[in-house]
Amino acid sequence: MNKVRLGIIGVGNIGTGHVQNILSGQCPEIVLSAAADRRESRRSWIRENLPDIPVFSEGEDLIASGQCEAVIICVPHYQHPPLAISALRHGLHTMVEKPAGVYTLQVREMNAEADRHPDLVFGMMFNQRTNCVYRKLKEMIDRGELGTLKRVSWLITDWYRTQNYYDSGAWRATWAGEGGGDLLNQCPHQLDLLQWLCGLPVRVRAFCHEGKWHDIEVEDDVTAYLEFENGATGVFITTTGDAPGTNRLEVTGTRGKVVCENGVLSFSRLAVDERDWCVSCPEGFRKPDCETVVVPTDGKNPQHVGVLNAFAGSILRGEPLTADGREGIRGLMLSNAMHLSSWLEKPVDLPFDEQLFKDLLMERCRHSRRKEDADITFDTKGSY
Amino acid sequence: MNKVRLGIIGVGNIGTGHVQNILSGQCPEIVLSAAADRRESRRSWIRENLPDIPVFSEGEDLIASGQCEAVIICVPHYQHPPLAISALRHGLHTMVEKPAGVYTLQVREMNAEADRHPDLVFGMMFNQRTNCVYRKLKEMIDRGELGTLKRVSWLITDWYRTQNYYDSGAWRATWAGEGGGDLLNQCPHQLDLLQWLCGLPVRVRAFCHEGKWHDIEVEDDVTAYLEFENGATGVFITTTGDAPGTNRLEVTGTRGKVVCENGVLSFSRLAVDERDWCVSCPEGFRKPDCETVVVPTDGKNPQHVGVLNAFAGSILRGEPLTADGREGIRGLMLSNAMHLSSWLEKPVDLPFDEQLFKDLLMERCRHSRRKEDADITFDTKGSY
Repeated sequence: MNKVRLGIIGVGNIGTGHVQNILSGQCPEIVLSAAADRRESRRSWIRENLPDIPVFSEGEDLIASGQCEAVIICVPHYQHPPLAISALRHGLHTMVEKPAGVYTLQVREMNAEADRHPDLVFGMMFNQRTNCVYRKLKEMIDRGELGTLKRVSWLITDWYRTQNYYDSGAWRATWAGEGGGDLLNQCPHQLDLLQWLCGLPVRVRAFCHEGKWHDIEVEDDVTAYLEFENGATGVFITTTGDAPGTNRLEVTGTRGKVVCENGVLSFSRLAVDERDWCVSCPEGFRKPDCETVVVPTDGKNPQHVGVLNAFAGSILRGEPLTADGREGIRGLMLSNAMHLSSWLEKPVDLPFDEQLFKDLLMERCRHSRRKEDADITFDTKGSY
Repeated sequence: MNKVRLGIIGVGNIGTGHVQNILSGQCPEIVLSAAADRRESRRSWIRENLPDIPVFSEGEDLIASGQCEAVIICVPHYQHPPLAISALRHGLHTMVEKPAGVYTLQVREMNAEADRHPDLVFGMMFNQRTNCVYRKLKEMIDRGELGTLKRVSWLITDWYRTQNYYDSGAWRATWAGEGGGDLLNQCPHQLDLLQWLCGLPVRVRAFCHEGKWHDIEVEDDVTAYLEFENGATGVFITTTGDAPGTNRLEVTGTRGKVVCENGVLSFSRLAVDERDWCVSCPEGFRKPDCETVVVPTDGKNPQHVGVLNAFAGSILRGEPLTADGREGIRGLMLSNAMHLSSWLEKPVDLPFDEQLFKDLLMERCRHSRRKEDADITFDTKGSY
């Protein structure tokens, strides 16, 4: 079988997970052909677990080595766009871990580079798009089963993290190292799914609380209010400080409501469109007839493995990606707009002033906290 | 048996419900001794159903008639405080339908009058406080079972109303007639319960959409963000435009989370306080141990009948009310603050400028829409 020779750049929490998935045979069309990490401890781990492949300190050296036809980039967020740009320029197919970057201007450069290489596969690791529940919901919305969007609320407060998590890496939860907190590290999945399912809002008012539950300088508690072009509204509520937390997505359209919680998709389907009913019903309180069903899905949820296998299939046979790399900017626009709104203490219209966002972010980076690196790698199983 | 001779002022949707409850024998310590309504159609209804009692056009005449020792006031909201003040001055025990009034300044006058009559019973019709689920939750919070409040979210979007509902009365859904929409008419229950359970927030930022789903001039869609004194945050989301809608209250404290939906109270209880765990757990992603249980309640939910019977018990034997009339101002403060925040397009701190709110409301009243009165009385069963 023809296999994709993949180099991995960054073997921290999530990179280690990818290596283990590939080594355990879950990605039969991928062979690891090189790895890079700036930490000696992680390079030792690679040498122990992958004795036959070249190991680099710098991702740039891996990219230039000629050992790979594709790379996956799993380093701190700021480095995603520059490494992806370099990989694309070296003719490598490129998979980027979420988020696409820290600020949209750098991601626009990455996307522009990708556009210059239509022959190369450029993917984004939006593993939650492989979840049968979200795939099914996307399909229902696209088919018009919910009618026109009226309201969305996502209570995604089950990203629990301890103080020790934040102390585990010097880059973590700092403006200079990570460029944000909950919105940049935990929520890129949901921000992407939100825009994938409902489209991007046109206006955001967010309330980000920095270091509220942990000794960190970035946000660990966010409530955002959204307005969409058609007048629909939404809230997005997230924290790494709640236990046990909640992950409940509710989408209401003119023809019904879907609730997605605990892996179950529940659909309350109206017999008629509520907008028609509202003006024609002769009674005052009566709702349209409604039946609630649990929506069957295909049950498949291959997560990171699914994204990597689609990446290989795209390289080898031109099959569709889970998520094109260029789509990474959309969730980041939401994230940046939430930060900007909170910093400015007012609503922010999309598209927003991306230079202003970068300037305000860089100002924060200049005063960013210096942290000791505890050099800890966590097992991320079940944490995403 | 000694019975309270009760006069009812206003026999519209909700007043008719009270009359029917009393006539059906559910309030054995209350006898209807007079009724008033400005509409001939409702006075005819009273004469048919209560042939032996005096019927008045004006509430003031009922109050002055000497036919009652207590009144219940079920007229449009603006008239609640002036009628209650008059009733108290005439030495009558007074029960007021929610909301306490339209703006807090008029309610402060009512409360001041009540304070001048400590011998009279003054109650507020907060029938949802009789719901076993909310009573149990209140008990749990007061006992500290949830620890310290961190987050509350109430998605209360199941107040569905058709256009015909709004067309049913000239006063409905106008600034001059009702003084607000969803927040004034449907949500006083939840706004009261919210402050009863969690206390009043210190800051509110609300987004009220007027006439969004119906041809009305007041709000029928609201998203409000709340901040409490201890740093806890919340959202309150309501509309009369969603079907089937949702009524889901989630309260998270440092020792666990309660979800109240579909009449079920579900408690996720942590083995230790999350705040202690966060700083002591050596792992990164691990949450404190947690068990989720359905909380048993006494199953009693006597609603309006319960409030009226407690009112009679208080008059006859000094027993506790469901809600003291003076507490009505608290939910109204929340409601007024939400309107004010939305009108000013900025966060509003509590206590807010009550004169400013009144001025802005009166400005709206001056331009308020004139509507035809369809003179329709709906059966409210199951609508509250």
